[in-house]
Amino acid sequence: MLNSIMEDKKELLKSLLRQIHEGRDVSELKEQFKDVLASISPLEIPLIEQELVKEGISTREIAKMCDIHVELFRESVEGAFSVEDIPEGHPLHTLFMENREIVKDAEMLALLANTLEREMKGEILEEMESVVAELIKVGHTHYNREEMLIFPYIERRGITAIPNVLWFKHDEIRAALRVLHRLLTTDTGERWEEHIKRVVEKAREVSSAMLDMVFRENNIFYPTLKVLLSEGEWRAIREQEEIIGYYKLKPAEWKSDAKPVHPYEIDTTITAEQLISLPEEVQNLLKGQLLKPDSYEVVREDDLRLDEGYLSQREINAIFKALPFDITFVDSNDRVRFFSGSDRIFARTPSVIGRRVHLCHPPRSVHIVDKILKAFRNGERDFAEFWINMGGRIIHIRYFAVRDEGEYLGTVEVVQDVTEIKRLEGEKRLLGWK
Amino acid sequence: MLNSIMEDKKELLKSLLRQIHEGRDVSELKEQFKDVLASISPLEIPLIEQELVKEGISTREIAKMCDIHVELFRESVEGAFSVEDIPEGHPLHTLFMENREIVKDAEMLALLANTLEREMKGEILEEMESVVAELIKVGHTHYNREEMLIFPYIERRGITAIPNVLWFKHDEIRAALRVLHRLLTTDTGERWEEHIKRVVEKAREVSSAMLDMVFRENNIFYPTLKVLLSEGEWRAIREQEEIIGYYKLKPAEWKSDAKPVHPYEIDTTITAEQLISLPEEVQNLLKGQLLKPDSYEVVREDDLRLDEGYLSQREINAIFKALPFDITFVDSNDRVRFFSGSDRIFARTPSVIGRRVHLCHPPRSVHIVDKILKAFRNGERDFAEFWINMGGRIIHIRYFAVRDEGEYLGTVEVVQDVTEIKRLEGEKRLLGWK
Repeated sequence: MLNSIMEDKKELLKSLLRQIHEGRDVSELKEQFKDVLASISPLEIPLIEQELVKEGISTREIAKMCDIHVELFRESVEGAFSVEDIPEGHPLHTLFMENREIVKDAEMLALLANTLEREMKGEILEEMESVVAELIKVGHTHYNREEMLIFPYIERRGITAIPNVLWFKHDEIRAALRVLHRLLTTDTGERWEEHIKRVVEKAREVSSAMLDMVFRENNIFYPTLKVLLSEGEWRAIREQEEIIGYYKLKPAEWKSDAKPVHPYEIDTTITAEQLISLPEEVQNLLKGQLLKPDSYEVVREDDLRLDEGYLSQREINAIFKALPFDITFVDSNDRVRFFSGSDRIFARTPSVIGRRVHLCHPPRSVHIVDKILKAFRNGERDFAEFWINMGGRIIHIRYFAVRDEGEYLGTVEVVQDVTEIKRLEGEKRLLGWK
Repeated sequence: MLNSIMEDKKELLKSLLRQIHEGRDVSELKEQFKDVLASISPLEIPLIEQELVKEGISTREIAKMCDIHVELFRESVEGAFSVEDIPEGHPLHTLFMENREIVKDAEMLALLANTLEREMKGEILEEMESVVAELIKVGHTHYNREEMLIFPYIERRGITAIPNVLWFKHDEIRAALRVLHRLLTTDTGERWEEHIKRVVEKAREVSSAMLDMVFRENNIFYPTLKVLLSEGEWRAIREQEEIIGYYKLKPAEWKSDAKPVHPYEIDTTITAEQLISLPEEVQNLLKGQLLKPDSYEVVREDDLRLDEGYLSQREINAIFKALPFDITFVDSNDRVRFFSGSDRIFARTPSVIGRRVHLCHPPRSVHIVDKILKAFRNGERDFAEFWINMGGRIIHIRYFAVRDEGEYLGTVEVVQDVTEIKRLEGEKRLLGWK
C-alpha cells in the first residue's frame, strides 16, 4: 500500500518515465521535474517501478531506461554532497562515482526482483545472478578501499564509531549477497514458488541495504572526509587504491604536490572550524564525548625502515625464528649471508656465513647448484623446486631469485615440511577457533 | 693371496690374538707386540681375521675380542697423531675419539662379511644391518661436522683441495652405505649365493673405505688442523657442534677464554712456522702453488647484524618479497607493524601500518582475533591455523606467537596458497634439475 503523498509522487514519476519512454529529451524533462525528483527517496523507486510494470511497460524496457533513470534521480540519491569542486581522479570523486554505479546495479536488482515475483521465469534468475556477481565485487573494491585505506585516518583522529558502523553494515551486505548468490546458484530442493519468494525477499533486502549505504556515505561519511582529510592524506590514499581496485570504473589521473601522509603521521587535531563544518549527524555523534586521538608512535628509535613497515632488529630475528620454514640466503657473490629457523629440517651452523655456496654442497651436486644460480643470475629462471621424502616426512625445497628493480641480489632457499599441509581437508575458518 | 711380508705379520698377529683368546694380559701383550702392530695397516686386518677364522676361532669370539683388538691396533691405526696433549672435549679430541668408534664398527662390518661369506646365514645379514644402520650415522655426525664446521676455516685460508677430496670421499662412503643398507633390507630377487656375494663385496668396500678415511683424517687432516686453527676458532666450532651431533659419544665440557672466531673473521695468513709443521703430504700439496686465501668481507657498512648472518636493508626487503608467503606482523601492542609479499593473496596497503589489529578485521570476527592474541600473550598457545577454499585455491592461514627469550614480541600471520603443494607426488631431487 502506498500512502497518498507517495501516490502523488508515483503519478508524476509515471508520467515522467512514460515521456522518456516516448523519446522526450532527458535534460529538458529533468529540469521540468526537478522538484518532484528531489522529494523522492530511491527506496521508493522499486515500488513505483512495480506500478509502471503493472501498467504495461515491460521490465526489459524499464531496465533499458535504467541509466537515464539513475541520471534523473541523481540529485535525490546524492543528497547534500556536491562533487563538482572535487577534481576527477581524487579518491573522494572516485568513491562518489562508484556509488552511482552501485545505485544503478542495486536498482536493477530490485527491478529484477519485481519482475521475478510477477513472471516467475527461470531466465530472470540467470539475469539476477549476473547482477549479483557484479555487486559482490563492491565488497572487494569500494567497501574494501574505505575499510583499508580511509578508515585508518578517521580512527587515528579518535572517531571510531563511524568506521565501525559502516564496516558492520558492509559485512551485513556482503553476507546477504553471498546468501543470495547461493540461492541463485544451488538447488535448494524447495518448491518453485517458495524458492522464488525467498529470492525476491533477499534481493529486495540486498538492494535496499546497498542503496541505504550509498545514502549514508554520500550524506554523512564523504562530507566528513572532505572536511577532515588533508591533501597529503588523499595523496597517500590515491597511491594505494590500485592495490585493491575499483568498482566498474578506472579513475582519471590525479596529481598532487603534497607529500603523502600515512595515518600514523597525521596531525590528529580537529579544529573548531572543521568541527562546525561536519555534517550534523557527526556533530551530534561527537557531542558530549571526549575524542581520544590515537597517539601510538609507530617509528621507534633504531627501527629498520622496510618497504612496508618498521621493525626492530630484535623483531626481525624473532620473526625469522617464528616462521614455519627454514630460510637461507646466498648473496649476489654466491656467498651464504644469512639463515634462519630455530628448529631446522637441515641443520645449519653459523660457520656457514660467508662461505661460497659451491663449498656448502656435496661435490657431486655442485654443478646443479651452479646451473640454478646461473639461470637466476641471467634472469632465465626465478624459481626451482624439489621435494623429497625424509623419514616419512615430505620436505619441500624451493629456491627463489631475489631481485630489486631487476637487479639480482641473491637467492633464497626455503625448506618446508609439508607433511601436515598435504593432509588438510575441507575448511577450518577463523570463527570456529576454540 | 698374501705376500710374504704380510704372511709374517699374519703369523705374529695370529699368535697375538690366540694369546688374547687364551686370557693373557692385554697391556703386557701390547708392549710385547708393539713393533709388529706399528707395521700393520688396518686394511690388512680383515685378511688376517679371515685366516684366524679358518683356523677355528669362531667369528663370534673374534667379534667379542673386537674392543681389545682395536685397543691393540690403536697405535698403528692412529698414525703419527698424538691426542694426549689435546684436552678432553676439544673438537679435535672428539673427532679423534669418534674415529676409534668408527674403526671398531668398520672392523666389525668386515668381520661379519667374512663370516657371512663362509656361513651364508640369514641371521648374519640382520647383525650386519644393525652395524650398517649405525655407520650411516657417521655421515650425519662426524663427517657432517667436519664439512660444516671445520672445512670453512681451511677453505678460508685458501686450502680447498683437502676439504674437497675428503668431502668427495665422505660422499662415496655415504652412497656405498646406502647401497649396502638397501641390499640388506630389500628383496633383490637374486639367487641366495649371488646376493650374499654382492653383500660381502659391498661390506668389504665400505669397511675399507671408512678405515682409509680414519687414516687420512688421523694422519693428514687432524695434524693440519692442529697446526693451523687458533683456540678462538676451536671455541666457535665447539659451540656449534651440538647442532649437528656426535657419533657414539658425548664429549666432555671444554671451556676456553678465547673469543669465538668465525671463518670470515680469521687471519688467513699461514706463517712459515706453521708451514713447516704441517704433515708432509700437505706441504707437498701446497708446494709450487700460490695459496689464495679468501678475502671476502662478509660484514658490509650499514649491514643489519642478525642472529645468523648479515643483511642489508635492501636484501631484507627483497627477501621478504621473494618468499612465497604473505607475512603480516602485529607487535606486542597489537599494532600492525609490518607486512610483506609482492603479489599478496589478501591485499594489504601501507595504510594498515600502525593500525590496531582489532580495527583490521570485520567487526564480527574481532572477538576471535582477540582470543587468539590473548592466548599467545599469556603463553597458553603459540600457534593457530585455518584453511579456506577461495575460488578453487586452498589458502592456509597461520598465526605464530613471536617471542624472544620468553617475552612476547607480537604475532606473525603467514598466508600461503597451498594448492600446488597438496598436489606434489613422489619425489623430485636436485640432481634431476633441468
